[in-house]
Amino acid sequence: MAKSRTGIWLIGAKGGVATTAILGLCALRKKLIESAGLVSSLPRFENAGLADWSDFVVGGHDIRAGSLFEHAERMHTDNKAVDPDVLARVKPDVERIDKNLRPGVLVNVGEAIEEFADKKLRRVRDTPRSAIERIRQDLAEFRKQHKLAHIVVVNVASTEPSADADELPPRWKKLDKLLDKPKKCRLPASSLYAIAAFEEECSYVNFTPSVGGSPPALRELALERGARQAGFDGKTGETLLKSTLAPMFAARHLEVMSWVGHNIFGNLDGKVLAQSPNKKAKAAAKDRLLRPILGYMPQTLVSLEYIESLGDWKTAWDHIHFRGFFGTPMTLQFTWQGCDSLLAAPLVLDLVRFSERAWRAGEIGTLTFLASFFKTPLDCEENDFGRQFQMLEAWCDGVGAKAYVGK
Amino acid sequence: MAKSRTGIWLIGAKGGVATTAILGLCALRKKLIESAGLVSSLPRFENAGLADWSDFVVGGHDIRAGSLFEHAERMHTDNKAVDPDVLARVKPDVERIDKNLRPGVLVNVGEAIEEFADKKLRRVRDTPRSAIERIRQDLAEFRKQHKLAHIVVVNVASTEPSADADELPPRWKKLDKLLDKPKKCRLPASSLYAIAAFEEECSYVNFTPSVGGSPPALRELALERGARQAGFDGKTGETLLKSTLAPMFAARHLEVMSWVGHNIFGNLDGKVLAQSPNKKAKAAAKDRLLRPILGYMPQTLVSLEYIESLGDWKTAWDHIHFRGFFGTPMTLQFTWQGCDSLLAAPLVLDLVRFSERAWRAGEIGTLTFLASFFKTPLDCEENDFGRQFQMLEAWCDGVGAKAYVGK
Amino acid sequence: MAKSRTGIWLIGAKGGVATTAILGLCALRKKLIESAGLVSSLPRFENAGLADWSDFVVGGHDIRAGSLFEHAERMHTDNKAVDPDVLARVKPDVERIDKNLRPGVLVNVGEAIEEFADKKLRRVRDTPRSAIERIRQDLAEFRKQHKLAHIVVVNVASTEPSADADELPPRWKKLDKLLDKPKKCRLPASSLYAIAAFEEECSYVNFTPSVGGSPPALRELALERGARQAGFDGKTGETLLKSTLAPMFAARHLEVMSWVGHNIFGNLDGKVLAQSPNKKAKAAAKDRLLRPILGYMPQTLVSLEYIESLGDWKTAWDHIHFRGFFGTPMTLQFTWQGCDSLLAAPLVLDLVRFSERAWRAGEIGTLTFLASFFKTPLDCEENDFGRQFQMLEAWCDGVGAKAYVGK
Amino acid sequence: MAKSRTGIWLIGAKGGVATTAILGLCALRKKLIESAGLVSSLPRFENAGLADWSDFVVGGHDIRAGSLFEHAERMHTDNKAVDPDVLARVKPDVERIDKNLRPGVLVNVGEAIEEFADKKLRRVRDTPRSAIERIRQDLAEFRKQHKLAHIVVVNVASTEPSADADELPPRWKKLDKLLDKPKKCRLPASSLYAIAAFEEECSYVNFTPSVGGSPPALRELALERGARQAGFDGKTGETLLKSTLAPMFAARHLEVMSWVGHNIFGNLDGKVLAQSPNKKAKAAAKDRLLRPILGYMPQTLVSLEYIESLGDWKTAWDHIHFRGFFGTPMTLQFTWQGCDSLLAAPLVLDLVRFSERAWRAGEIGTLTFLASFFKTPLDCEENDFGRQFQMLEAWCDGVGAKAYVGK
Repeated sequence: MAKSRTGIWLIGAKGGVATTAILGLCALRKKLIESAGLVSSLPRFENAGLADWSDFVVGGHDIRAGSLFEHAERMHTDNKAVDPDVLARVKPDVERIDKNLRPGVLVNVGEAIEEFADKKLRRVRDTPRSAIERIRQDLAEFRKQHKLAHIVVVNVASTEPSADADELPPRWKKLDKLLDKPKKCRLPASSLYAIAAFEEECSYVNFTPSVGGSPPALRELALERGARQAGFDGKTGETLLKSTLAPMFAARHLEVMSWVGHNIFGNLDGKVLAQSPNKKAKAAAKDRLLRPILGYMPQTLVSLEYIESLGDWKTAWDHIHFRGFFGTPMTLQFTWQGCDSLLAAPLVLDLVRFSERAWRAGEIGTLTFLASFFKTPLDCEENDFGRQFQMLEAWCDGVGAKAYVGK
Repeated sequence: MAKSRTGIWLIGAKGGVATTAILGLCALRKKLIESAGLVSSLPRFENAGLADWSDFVVGGHDIRAGSLFEHAERMHTDNKAVDPDVLARVKPDVERIDKNLRPGVLVNVGEAIEEFADKKLRRVRDTPRSAIERIRQDLAEFRKQHKLAHIVVVNVASTEPSADADELPPRWKKLDKLLDKPKKCRLPASSLYAIAAFEEECSYVNFTPSVGGSPPALRELALERGARQAGFDGKTGETLLKSTLAPMFAARHLEVMSWVGHNIFGNLDGKVLAQSPNKKAKAAAKDRLLRPILGYMPQTLVSLEYIESLGDWKTAWDHIHFRGFFGTPMTLQFTWQGCDSLLAAPLVLDLVRFSERAWRAGEIGTLTFLASFFKTPLDCEENDFGRQFQMLEAWCDGVGAKAYVGK
Repeated sequence: MAKSRTGIWLIGAKGGVATTAILGLCALRKKLIESAGLVSSLPRFENAGLADWSDFVVGGHDIRAGSLFEHAERMHTDNKAVDPDVLARVKPDVERIDKNLRPGVLVNVGEAIEEFADKKLRRVRDTPRSAIERIRQDLAEFRKQHKLAHIVVVNVASTEPSADADELPPRWKKLDKLLDKPKKCRLPASSLYAIAAFEEECSYVNFTPSVGGSPPALRELALERGARQAGFDGKTGETLLKSTLAPMFAARHLEVMSWVGHNIFGNLDGKVLAQSPNKKAKAAAKDRLLRPILGYMPQTLVSLEYIESLGDWKTAWDHIHFRGFFGTPMTLQFTWQGCDSLLAAPLVLDLVRFSERAWRAGEIGTLTFLASFFKTPLDCEENDFGRQFQMLEAWCDGVGAKAYVGK
Repeated sequence: MAKSRTGIWLIGAKGGVATTAILGLCALRKKLIESAGLVSSLPRFENAGLADWSDFVVGGHDIRAGSLFEHAERMHTDNKAVDPDVLARVKPDVERIDKNLRPGVLVNVGEAIEEFADKKLRRVRDTPRSAIERIRQDLAEFRKQHKLAHIVVVNVASTEPSADADELPPRWKKLDKLLDKPKKCRLPASSLYAIAAFEEECSYVNFTPSVGGSPPALRELALERGARQAGFDGKTGETLLKSTLAPMFAARHLEVMSWVGHNIFGNLDGKVLAQSPNKKAKAAAKDRLLRPILGYMPQTLVSLEYIESLGDWKTAWDHIHFRGFFGTPMTLQFTWQGCDSLLAAPLVLDLVRFSERAWRAGEIGTLTFLASFFKTPLDCEENDFGRQFQMLEAWCDGVGAKAYVGK
């Protein structure tokens, strides 16, 4: 089966992660940067039949004013994370992508996000139904215009306030009816995008902790339409380390008494989070994995604080207090200093490549083999990063073998 | 097959690791401490048919003067690592074990070790052959006196200067003949103990970086006699973390540019090492695993320094400088503060339990499924701690299943 | 003027800091411990004419049940911070001191503190006036019974909820009248103790962030009665480092952009604070000094979190993000791991010695030369620890010189 | 007395510190950067009558090929420490300064330094005398051409191998005679530059640990000629922190048991040091201050290691193990991450400004009031950074007051 052109549709296309992914994709095509940071470029996966960087076309939604390139430039001006020479050389490509961007949806995104939306957009009064229709039209038009075989929709927008998914009807039929009743339907924008993506038979990747496609009714819809989804919340730093280190404590029978993690960062994500009612939920998600890995829950503390001077450079300090033989307390501390967008963006590109491959391989529903990319992997009980990565290897070995047989 | 009494023979029985293992074993039997730190006590292994703590009898060799209890007390007085109440309650048990100790061997151990040997012992002039004979007699007598079905010999003596194993004849027959020629035979004490253990059909575990049973001629001997060995160099701190974290960098395609590790500690091991010509070799061993895990060798630096005030509390600071997307440098630092003997001693007890189980299961030669316990696992290419641990799980599941079938 | 017996009256005498100070005083007298940690024992101050350890008699108030020794033992059982041998040897002395303890006062101390008070005590209904009277009687009786020339009252009780001192009448006469009107008088217990101390012409040291003797009306009272006070909030860890490091950044013109400090600890103080409405105030006090030292206010963040497993071992992680030449950001991080009571207790003894000396030297009012001991030194603008210490040196040189002349 | 043009003569003018100082001076004049990092720009010193940035003319010696701007660019290309826009805007100024550079001297600089010298220069055969003469001519010509009232010579060249200053004759007359006997005179280049500077009545600042003007015979010469000197070894990172933190431990009577410092960095200085026989001496200098500050010598360890990936970004990890009350051990750790040239360069400009002011104020000999800038301040016993800084304040207040009176 020949590879064909695939769309990458970024929700929050002008944000730090999206613009870095766009800059990266353009730079990879022009061979201006190396493949460091890209999981899908590991020699380990070279027989998995993944698409080439040149096979992708980028579009997306965003609620902000300003050109895509202006937003992308910040990775240099604010964060010294992208070389100005590279920026200059990919400028025309970025400007071409900018033409594929469409205005986003503000339904139930919360005040913190609304605050930085384009003024014109804030005047639009969408119902859930009309928003979904608008998104579907944008996707369909993108597909038609660029003759795309498939589209992977990726949510990299700011985190929404946590919605209570339990209150939603569990079946799609019932939920569908609510979409015309704005006052009764509390579905946030991230879920409306997911619905549109599923109805358009796209793959949907939720790189954020927002609700997205996770409610049961939406999972039903995805299966029904033969769509794929993966999520949620990209695992880029502290939680990556937790899911790597906690199995070591478990394997050595070292009892973790307390695990304290303090995260400081100064990007927009941090700013939105600082004001957001779901900061607590986000923090909790960073701890959730400890109980299944350790088999018990130590005292934990996670703080996420907005420190402006750090920009996109996230610093995490973790203090792990554990008990060994004779019950004697010992300590592991670590400090992780990384540029958040540079850690996240390549994973977005990886998820697109693996999702597209899964579409070609005929997978539908939740792509559990992508668990290693997420803080809270959907439909997956494995929280040990090493074992999650082995799931990815196994799946790729499988499709690689099948592809070979098919030749 | 019924479990029967098993001997634990500790080489370096008065050292920190050995005395802590002894105190721990006695305390476990009296239920004075919990099982934290013991891998073999994980629920995961409860169907593996491991021996009970009450099944073991302890003996050993040491070159130092002073009673076993005096040495054991230091874990409280110097390191505040063992509760004085526990010490008091196991005192009679420790004193009973002391009667099973025999004077050790000083052949080719190097000046640093000789320095703290009992004066009387320093006057003994052993040839390699006579030393082996003496050790064999001690083991045979121990077996007979306590009616032991099996003995596991564990080397927890101070690190010897590195010997050039390449100069040794590769076949046992030739090496055997050299044992009568002290001047031509550079085999260090650790190897003489290994030979004696193999000839007595014991299991031999090398918890140190000394040569021990690793030369090809000795592996041949082990197989010939149906003995088992495992080694070498217990993985308790910094290297444990390296073998846990390096796979994460590899899986995420984050390029490690440099990995710097500084270790400071104030125990006898540190003192011997500080003067030892093989400090460099020890340091190198702590880095060796990076190339196979990462697929390339970053710049590395390992220092091991004796800082008296720290006693047995080892502190490691590691600085990992890596490159992500767009080649941008980022940093992970960690500080590990642990009591060395408390980290090592339970692993010694684990290794004894797993080795004894392997003996009952009919295994001979190198026990590669024990790789997760060692810095440089013999006959094993796997360096990823998580995958090494899966080897242990798989082996235990296997013997567990067989045992179940056999019932 | 001959030295004579001096009383140390500890408010919160059964708490961690007080019991450690008591154990320390007893151990110093019996020469069981060295003088490390005691500022007043520095050779620098040996000519200042300070009282000997044998010159002091200890008494105090507390609201808890349980014997003093039981509370003191925790420094070993919970925190491994005091040797059990030392504990055993000073037990009779501690029991003798226990006889000097009296039940404390619960007026306006807040729920968190009331919760661990002795049940009997919780039934007592004190008015501010009656509480003061009771305290005065206890002090007077203590003085008489032990023939004391002077008493130094030290507040080492748990932190009270912050009271709005601004609402109090600024003159003593007016405030005095409110003492009979419990509903109109919001003075917390710490201030009632201070009033009693001033009226009894004692010295009063406030080692906590509670209001104590700081309201203007109480300062007036202190001066009127010729009493002395010093405070407030002992500087033992993170703030000590802040007042040491911030002057370095200022002197080097390195612009501090943000200073983040995370404090984790598991002692009672931490537990009370975790529930307390004045946690925020406490945190703010730890930052206040940055503006006067730096000349501007960087973004700051201070968190204080109760992590049970740490016991009295406080760990602070500070991340200082600063800008040097060309505006380039750089970072200093530190981790401070100390036993809180062991850091605080010797300062309590120092403050008693210096206060007693000030009484002999005829000082009245606020003892500003003690600024180096406090987070928020009363009546003192100097926040640089080094310069604060020079104030102590200068004062001691002064009384030393006078004492010499007087001979 | 009116300010007039002053020369800054940089030895090692193409090195990281010098080029950063040059870029900084040019950028300050054009108001492209702010004054952060410059001690002399603190409001505290605005009445000290210091020269303006526009009053200086730059020249210097270097042994390397390549244009000054090429070398300066590395601060952006290698270290991301200087903005490329700023670089572009000061390029013409830097090129003008390049014309004032002259080939340096290679007498006794050691192999590591010779290795990167311009090939042509390596063929020159200087005697000490001829080298001094050449330097003097360069300085005289510089003074004449730019009509300079005064020249401040600053040594920022790579560290030379340590020379045994004790073997030199203590009097200038005798040493002077040796200058014609290359085989008997082991004076390194840094001292020849110092001699030339003194004979030309310049101010000489030694920002490196090289011998420079420190031998007694050279101090005699400096006084005789009415020259000034200051040194040695700029205090920019770990030692700055040591001289700030050690006084805190001393003041609190906390007994430092061990102080371990590991420094990793990847600049040329690190490379030269890695090969240099005086690495040990450099390391020792970083510890020397502990004894005078603490009053005793703890166990110390200092390592300086070349880690290429770090470039000019120096990371220091210090582990301070101290004993408080009851002898209980506690720990302070810090990590300092700074760009070495950005920390050092502004201090070079400060030292020039203060030295020029001292010349105008009529000072001769060692400028001890500059102690706070150096690891090993010449002729000064004060090692506490805070107190050293007070010496600077006092001197400036003094000249400020005099200047005021003179108006």
